[in-house]
Amino acid sequence: MAAKRNAVTTEAPESSAPGEGTALALDSRLSKRVESVIPKKRHEALKWFGWGYNDSQFYGKDGIICFRGEKYPLGGCELPSFTKWVEKKFDLRVDITKQYPQLPRTYPRPVENAPFLHELKGTTQVDYSAEGIDRLVRCHGQTLNDIYSLWHHKFRRIPDLVVWPRCHDEVVQLVRLAHKHNVMLVPFGGGTSVSGAITCPQNESRMICALDTSQMNRLLWLNRENLTVCFESGIVGQDLERVLRSEGLTVGHEPDSYEFSTLGGWVATRASGMKKNVYGNIEDLVVRVRMVTPSGTLERECSAPRVSCGPDFNHVILGSEGTLGVITEVVLKVRPLPSVRRYGSLAFPNFEQGVLFMREVARRRCQPASVRLMDNEQFMFGQALKPEKSWWAGVVDAMKQRYVTSWKGIDLNQICAATLLFEGDLKDVQRQEALIYEIAEKFEGFPAGGQNGERGYILTFVIAYIRDFGLHQGIVAESFETSVPWDRCSLLCRSVKQRVVSECSKRSINYYTISCRVTQTYDAGACIYFYFGFRSTDVADPVELFEAIEHSARDEILSCGGSLSHHHGVGKIRSHWYRNAVTETGSSLYSAAKRHLDPKNIFALGNLLPLEEAHPTAEASPPPATPSTPPKAKL
Amino acid sequence: MAAKRNAVTTEAPESSAPGEGTALALDSRLSKRVESVIPKKRHEALKWFGWGYNDSQFYGKDGIICFRGEKYPLGGCELPSFTKWVEKKFDLRVDITKQYPQLPRTYPRPVENAPFLHELKGTTQVDYSAEGIDRLVRCHGQTLNDIYSLWHHKFRRIPDLVVWPRCHDEVVQLVRLAHKHNVMLVPFGGGTSVSGAITCPQNESRMICALDTSQMNRLLWLNRENLTVCFESGIVGQDLERVLRSEGLTVGHEPDSYEFSTLGGWVATRASGMKKNVYGNIEDLVVRVRMVTPSGTLERECSAPRVSCGPDFNHVILGSEGTLGVITEVVLKVRPLPSVRRYGSLAFPNFEQGVLFMREVARRRCQPASVRLMDNEQFMFGQALKPEKSWWAGVVDAMKQRYVTSWKGIDLNQICAATLLFEGDLKDVQRQEALIYEIAEKFEGFPAGGQNGERGYILTFVIAYIRDFGLHQGIVAESFETSVPWDRCSLLCRSVKQRVVSECSKRSINYYTISCRVTQTYDAGACIYFYFGFRSTDVADPVELFEAIEHSARDEILSCGGSLSHHHGVGKIRSHWYRNAVTETGSSLYSAAKRHLDPKNIFALGNLLPLEEAHPTAEASPPPATPSTPPKAKL
Repeated sequence: MAAKRNAVTTEAPESSAPGEGTALALDSRLSKRVESVIPKKRHEALKWFGWGYNDSQFYGKDGIICFRGEKYPLGGCELPSFTKWVEKKFDLRVDITKQYPQLPRTYPRPVENAPFLHELKGTTQVDYSAEGIDRLVRCHGQTLNDIYSLWHHKFRRIPDLVVWPRCHDEVVQLVRLAHKHNVMLVPFGGGTSVSGAITCPQNESRMICALDTSQMNRLLWLNRENLTVCFESGIVGQDLERVLRSEGLTVGHEPDSYEFSTLGGWVATRASGMKKNVYGNIEDLVVRVRMVTPSGTLERECSAPRVSCGPDFNHVILGSEGTLGVITEVVLKVRPLPSVRRYGSLAFPNFEQGVLFMREVARRRCQPASVRLMDNEQFMFGQALKPEKSWWAGVVDAMKQRYVTSWKGIDLNQICAATLLFEGDLKDVQRQEALIYEIAEKFEGFPAGGQNGERGYILTFVIAYIRDFGLHQGIVAESFETSVPWDRCSLLCRSVKQRVVSECSKRSINYYTISCRVTQTYDAGACIYFYFGFRSTDVADPVELFEAIEHSARDEILSCGGSLSHHHGVGKIRSHWYRNAVTETGSSLYSAAKRHLDPKNIFALGNLLPLEEAHPTAEASPPPATPSTPPKAKL
Repeated sequence: MAAKRNAVTTEAPESSAPGEGTALALDSRLSKRVESVIPKKRHEALKWFGWGYNDSQFYGKDGIICFRGEKYPLGGCELPSFTKWVEKKFDLRVDITKQYPQLPRTYPRPVENAPFLHELKGTTQVDYSAEGIDRLVRCHGQTLNDIYSLWHHKFRRIPDLVVWPRCHDEVVQLVRLAHKHNVMLVPFGGGTSVSGAITCPQNESRMICALDTSQMNRLLWLNRENLTVCFESGIVGQDLERVLRSEGLTVGHEPDSYEFSTLGGWVATRASGMKKNVYGNIEDLVVRVRMVTPSGTLERECSAPRVSCGPDFNHVILGSEGTLGVITEVVLKVRPLPSVRRYGSLAFPNFEQGVLFMREVARRRCQPASVRLMDNEQFMFGQALKPEKSWWAGVVDAMKQRYVTSWKGIDLNQICAATLLFEGDLKDVQRQEALIYEIAEKFEGFPAGGQNGERGYILTFVIAYIRDFGLHQGIVAESFETSVPWDRCSLLCRSVKQRVVSECSKRSINYYTISCRVTQTYDAGACIYFYFGFRSTDVADPVELFEAIEHSARDEILSCGGSLSHHHGVGKIRSHWYRNAVTETGSSLYSAAKRHLDPKNIFALGNLLPLEEAHPTAEASPPPATPSTPPKAKL
């Protein structure tokens, strides 16, 4: 995946941050600059109008969908099965005449705060830009709405200025200046948010300054004895892992966005990684974290592994979604690189059997690094994406063979598949494999080959490119996710899919796909991902329509006992439900913390609570004198 | 340990809490009343003047220390080795003529808030008492200072009233009334705090009401599919485990206090259990929790296993130490009872080798349910406590044998020991055992028998009784704990012991014991327990002296990179350091949350921040306009 080779250079002592900026540093002279695959001018490598690298893209040629992009195994492939799947599913022909959008010729006129700019230039060394393209590519994340707005030049508000602090101390300076001059700040990491979290609020009248963390990406120290490492927050996942790999180590945090998303973004959204079963989710990996707020730097004073020292404010920083301050430095746990990595896959007669298998694996706590279960629709979609002889065909062959000998009543439109990734010592991996296949058999599952599993995981990073191609061809598509207790898992999957079907039917949408997968398992429940897309060629505002249906689906999720989000966060697009999710008392506690840490609301992103509710003045909203009635819970 | 048999009865539907009180309940008719081993009048079973059951106690007979108490395996034993150890270590003879203290004849006159009492009696069904003994036994926890103050009738302020709410709704009523009438509330669970957390503030002028949670101890529901259970917060550990064991399940949370401490107390202090390697610490076990505050009930709306939904307020409730509200109901994870439980022990030539072993076990993440490492002093103390032929002798025999054949330069005054507890399936346990003994060998450790390990664990619950006997005989002794990164572990142990030695020397204390053990291991560090005691027969105020030395030891811990507390919490006795531990920004965020949730400071316990700092009015302490300088960190 990594475009460039590892490039770690030791930095001269004099250029490292002095004084208060080194609180998490063992010895700042040990810090290493990391050459990133993403340049400072990010649009030179990344699409301004969509997901991923400029040189990586789905496109149509001679009526066939192809993929270009050397960074991915699918690069240079023609995809006839996928073409057929798309054409049949959406009743359309691949149109190769369509153009991707052109950059706008003009950009919104910037709001300027002259005293802020004056002091920025006069008292700091912070680099900045007011160029239109620098501003445009930092005005949004990667929601369908963001991309659609870009394509149609719909953004009224984009950052008025971009700044690139190089260390914690420069962030302290910036936050101080922004607070002093009442300038709004948007902490900008990898720009991969799918919750609207970093999208500029369109009604902000103050100057908006995008604080780009990309130049804060040093490895500050590595402690092999403790297996801990300190990075600046702006490092992107692939850079972080490349640097550690060269030291024989890994953090092991691999959200699907990890090529482009940053450490700071992971903390701010409470990210989850594909291999969390071995390495943990971000909250399990973080030992210590610093966040600069207008009221000071929030951090813990010591690096002890577990403490009982009052409320744990790491968990206030985790999930703060840019609304409370800027995350600057993070101490993470690392692990030795596993000696063995193996893939596997399983097929089950139906989704419910697959869920029972997943539940049993979780009950016995024998999850491999990753285990994912796809429903039938997604299984077929996945195999269609493969350039060679399809997985599907192979599995069907095996099913048929089995069917003759021992199986009865198998419905090929019902079967589903799980992909497996094992990491560890050879002995551990072998034991895990034996146990997993033994459990699978109890639920009528059987092995469908390691190669199939591997291809499933490799596709993960390419799938994100499909959305833009779909939009280009007149299909709007996006994923959404939740977490749910085990006893509601199958019910929730069924109900949400039914709800989407009925919403489509109500709106005379005839060509669509809705599918789901179970991507994470826990002691008490699982994470479910839904993929939904429909043909929008006849629709006036396809994104509005998509959002209306997604909104219904979320209502259905909540009424089935699912959560507002497992790992994408609340952002703006789910802020409607936040108050109910944490109850009135919780949302007012969030507001109180926000008022305290950011009294002028310079981080006015409108995440979690909608902007009009997020920041009432202290006078306008005194705490209620008597306990309020919490809303009725789902369970 | 459990005195009474399991007694679960189904409760009639009409008596379960209605309406908002059932938010965490699947079906309130499923709730089961649990008959507790601790009666409502707790002093009928538990000592008013010290630790544990009335019928369990160390005492002297014919110059020999003995232990009485049927509930423990040591009950009825004479302890000649222990007697010798005590007499030699502290240069004194066991005095059997001394008396345990007598109950006071009078109690401090209660402060009365007539309107509160009037409304309590008129509008609620909550049971209450103003009897002196009920008030006295709920005025304190189990610090040395608490017990010494009891013995010497030193408490000026004790609760003016005790109330026994029976469910969440009654707690809501009580908090509403207390807030309305400005009455201070002390949430009182098992009374086992060793941080001063529940000790009444001696300068409180308002009426103090102890809110005893012991009558809120129902099992509200059990969900076998999700392996989750909901208990009211007042259930004590042994009752909780007994009820679950009868269902083939366990939570597996076993702090040393678990016979008497409550679920609510575990959450409020961020407790850690002996077997956390399998079951997790309390923060890993809690799925959902309700806390009643004057500004409403704080809780999450759904039971999904992991969410990304803004700051996680469970982690504000965890560690809140009674200062923000009353924890009423908790959803916990449960596990099937393990089929196999086995003990083991290891001996190492010295403590440093033992620490290296512990570090390697953590690095390879193969910790058994429990692994503890004792230093030489503590090892000898432990073996002295055994009534039969000592473990020590057995180990020494084995050492000598080894010595002849393969060991060189072993110093019997240097060797240390680890105890092991394995739980799980037979195969898992066997694999763990093989791996642990293999790793031990790398660090010159060798197996010292399962029986020795088992006796070590069994003694855990008896050791807590020693403190009172010591006090009775003129020895003050107490433990304190911390957590620390691996690379500072040996250094910290050495430095803290040296510091205590030097503090004793400075004060001409010649007879004392200072020892340590590593009780928990994590990826990035460990928990260390210190035991310190000295002969105080010639000292005017032994507790003051003890606290001065403990204070120095804590300074030493912090300067070695250790934490303020691993699991006992901050309470009052460590509030001096809280601000530094979480930095100015953290402590002011705590204060802001406190002001918001408890604007009249009815939970004025003085934990975390000293009382005079904890609750400045909003006007007196505006958030600083510019980021403040964080104090310099240790690492």
